[in-house]
Amino acid sequence: MRTIHVIGIGAGDPDQLTLQAVKAMRGTDVFFVLDKGEVKSDLVQLRHDLLEAHIPEGTYRLVEARDPERDRSAGGAAYSPAVGDWRSARADIYERLIGEELGEDETGAFLVWGDPALYDSTLGILQEVLGRGAVAFEYDVVPGVSSVSALVARHRTGLNRVARPVQITTGRRLAEGFPEGVDDVVVMLDAHQTFRQYVDQDIDIYWGAYIGTPDEILASGPIAEAAPRIERLRAEARERKGWIMDTYLLRRHARGDGG
Amino acid sequence: MRTIHVIGIGAGDPDQLTLQAVKAMRGTDVFFVLDKGEVKSDLVQLRHDLLEAHIPEGTYRLVEARDPERDRSAGGAAYSPAVGDWRSARADIYERLIGEELGEDETGAFLVWGDPALYDSTLGILQEVLGRGAVAFEYDVVPGVSSVSALVARHRTGLNRVARPVQITTGRRLAEGFPEGVDDVVVMLDAHQTFRQYVDQDIDIYWGAYIGTPDEILASGPIAEAAPRIERLRAEARERKGWIMDTYLLRRHARGDGG
Repeated sequence: MRTIHVIGIGAGDPDQLTLQAVKAMRGTDVFFVLDKGEVKSDLVQLRHDLLEAHIPEGTYRLVEARDPERDRSAGGAAYSPAVGDWRSARADIYERLIGEELGEDETGAFLVWGDPALYDSTLGILQEVLGRGAVAFEYDVVPGVSSVSALVARHRTGLNRVARPVQITTGRRLAEGFPEGVDDVVVMLDAHQTFRQYVDQDIDIYWGAYIGTPDEILASGPIAEAAPRIERLRAEARERKGWIMDTYLLRRHARGDGG
Repeated sequence: MRTIHVIGIGAGDPDQLTLQAVKAMRGTDVFFVLDKGEVKSDLVQLRHDLLEAHIPEGTYRLVEARDPERDRSAGGAAYSPAVGDWRSARADIYERLIGEELGEDETGAFLVWGDPALYDSTLGILQEVLGRGAVAFEYDVVPGVSSVSALVARHRTGLNRVARPVQITTGRRLAEGFPEGVDDVVVMLDAHQTFRQYVDQDIDIYWGAYIGTPDEILASGPIAEAAPRIERLRAEARERKGWIMDTYLLRRHARGDGG
């Protein structure tokens, strides 16, 4: 039976690999690396570097493929139809990769930035491929340090305050309003700097880009003061590198709370 | 200047240590291990095992202290006053440990289960100790694989569904009602199996105890069917081991959603 590991490799710092991830990688015959296009080729390079650093050369094969671009023009709050087509197109690719590139008794692996549990589609796509029934495989998941954990570690703060909840959401959702019932909100996948909507509120922001890599940028403070600074840093970095991956925590001061 | 590392050591599997955590541990002179009392001495033993496995003997000192018990009888939704006293009592202990046990140019470390960012008080206490001004130190945070990531990895599912939010909260909060605006909720620190309140809803539960350790127990399914099974497993395990640490994800089926 074919086996697939879905391995969380941490937020960008090669030392954020777990010992479990290194072991799983050392037991892997074929690594599947999906390139999302030129702008993110740095991320592909980082994965190559990880393999070179930890896995003896000649013990594995590397199979690269082009990830289909998602049609983001479709719009709508949930953007489900476009996501559905995109997942289906990706499932075609994954099915072909597993069927054609992985021998019957071999082990393959997908290396996922951060933690495969947060805003990553690999598990959903593998389940879709299995459901189609054309190729059979076992799979397991190696959890990783998420970009969320890495962000707040660099800011030396927690995700939640004592006995209180935290919500992890998307920029698109945040644009619809500050989530109900929480004062601590982590925002991922925000291409539009939605935090700017909240500059008139009593909120602290903890922001970071390229966390854990040599390009890491951090900024934090009361949102009214920090937001313009983050906008500038973000624009400069995006210009310089051609792409950006950033995440932030919004921490709203509740009435009668010390912070 | 004294330095303190706050190191996330993963959810229980010694292989969930990151390479970064191992490096930080190898650079540590004094490990502070706080015992929460007899019932959790297994957790102290696991930390001893981690040190033995990864750090050369004779290169570090181990300082053990008793963590004060929290007064949970005080009640109230936020239980802030009891938490405040408890934090203050812990700050006294940490201040003394750092001041008396760590030399001026030495490095100390606190090893935190999971990720220091989630429902852990170490960072807050260190900030309180610094604020008092009696001992000075630098500190940093090494993020870890959270019990939340480890839970869903073992269940081979994600925390969020496509483009949707996830909330991480406590059993006490869940008892007040299902959180607004989310259908995926991770519950920590639930001593009362609050999921039982929701057995009549269209919810799947993904539950786990002692995740990543040899005692790991997993259970999942539609909540009406799974809840009695989890109650039984939990009672048996608690009886057998004397303590339990469990976490779960509640995934509510939204109208018109395929799961």
